[in-house]
Amino acid sequence: MKNITVENLSAKIKSVIRDVPDFPKQGIIFKDITPFLNNPEIFSETVRFIADKYKNRGVSKVLGIEARGFILAAPIALELKAGFVPVRKKGKLPYKTVSGTYDLEYGQDTLQLHEDAVKKGEKILIIDDVLATGGTAKCACRMAEKLGAEIESIAMLIELEFLKGREKLQNYDLFSLVKY
Amino acid sequence: MKNITVENLSAKIKSVIRDVPDFPKQGIIFKDITPFLNNPEIFSETVRFIADKYKNRGVSKVLGIEARGFILAAPIALELKAGFVPVRKKGKLPYKTVSGTYDLEYGQDTLQLHEDAVKKGEKILIIDDVLATGGTAKCACRMAEKLGAEIESIAMLIELEFLKGREKLQNYDLFSLVKY
Repeated sequence: MKNITVENLSAKIKSVIRDVPDFPKQGIIFKDITPFLNNPEIFSETVRFIADKYKNRGVSKVLGIEARGFILAAPIALELKAGFVPVRKKGKLPYKTVSGTYDLEYGQDTLQLHEDAVKKGEKILIIDDVLATGGTAKCACRMAEKLGAEIESIAMLIELEFLKGREKLQNYDLFSLVKY
Repeated sequence: MKNITVENLSAKIKSVIRDVPDFPKQGIIFKDITPFLNNPEIFSETVRFIADKYKNRGVSKVLGIEARGFILAAPIALELKAGFVPVRKKGKLPYKTVSGTYDLEYGQDTLQLHEDAVKKGEKILIIDDVLATGGTAKCACRMAEKLGAEIESIAMLIELEFLKGREKLQNYDLFSLVKY
């Protein structure tokens, strides 16, 4: 892990991300991270890089956004010796929840967080695989804040810069490893 | 990690699993693992225990079943220096897939696996949080076998013994940490 730079790691990650045209619909080029996850060296290096970045910042909970966010957030939480907390789609969490909505192209969708998952004053790291419009990340931040927690940072594997999600999250610290 | 037994670890895990009555429907007592995931000591010990169990068995891919299976499978894959492979619900994986179906109480559901995710002759470990009727695990095994891979084992955090999922999986090596 010595001397590894964002540029260096980003290039490695890009080498194992696959473009899938017309998914989930016509005209969209989907960034498929499954070849990255299938590569234990690069996946592991990425987890350690992100965990290293946050290790002295007092993060006690790592929130992963359903479903691909779970895959990155769980090992990062373990590296940081922080709790892992799932942010899930409506109806999936069994206990008492807080809810938040975010805009879709047409209509809205709802995310939920267990109300005992984060505590007042705790520092939170939010993780997802792709920052697109920023709607789900912002929704996750607001739910954690509703419970009195503090957003230390948001970390994304990939940022799709042309969708300008960063603008929606300008009140938060935001890190992304790979930019398109 | 010295001298830790299944019984010992199982008791610890049970202490952080929450029973939620009437979820997802009336009469069902749901085993909520979110307090377990929120406890980095016990979650970490569990990941290391399962990874340790499989470390000399040549596993090159760890398959996690959507969505809670991802949370356990990703860090176990990294510990084993094996690739992580998501088994997803229909329509979620962007690239070419193989599909399998499993029975629900009424009707059927479909799981998918990328066709390049596992290779002929590879040894596979399948991971999920709960073994209930065994339908999804068996479906995951069959898809991996369709691609020529070999199921080294199936590991579950929790086994609901009264649902007899183990009977459906008797052709496979099966390990569960916590039994109810």
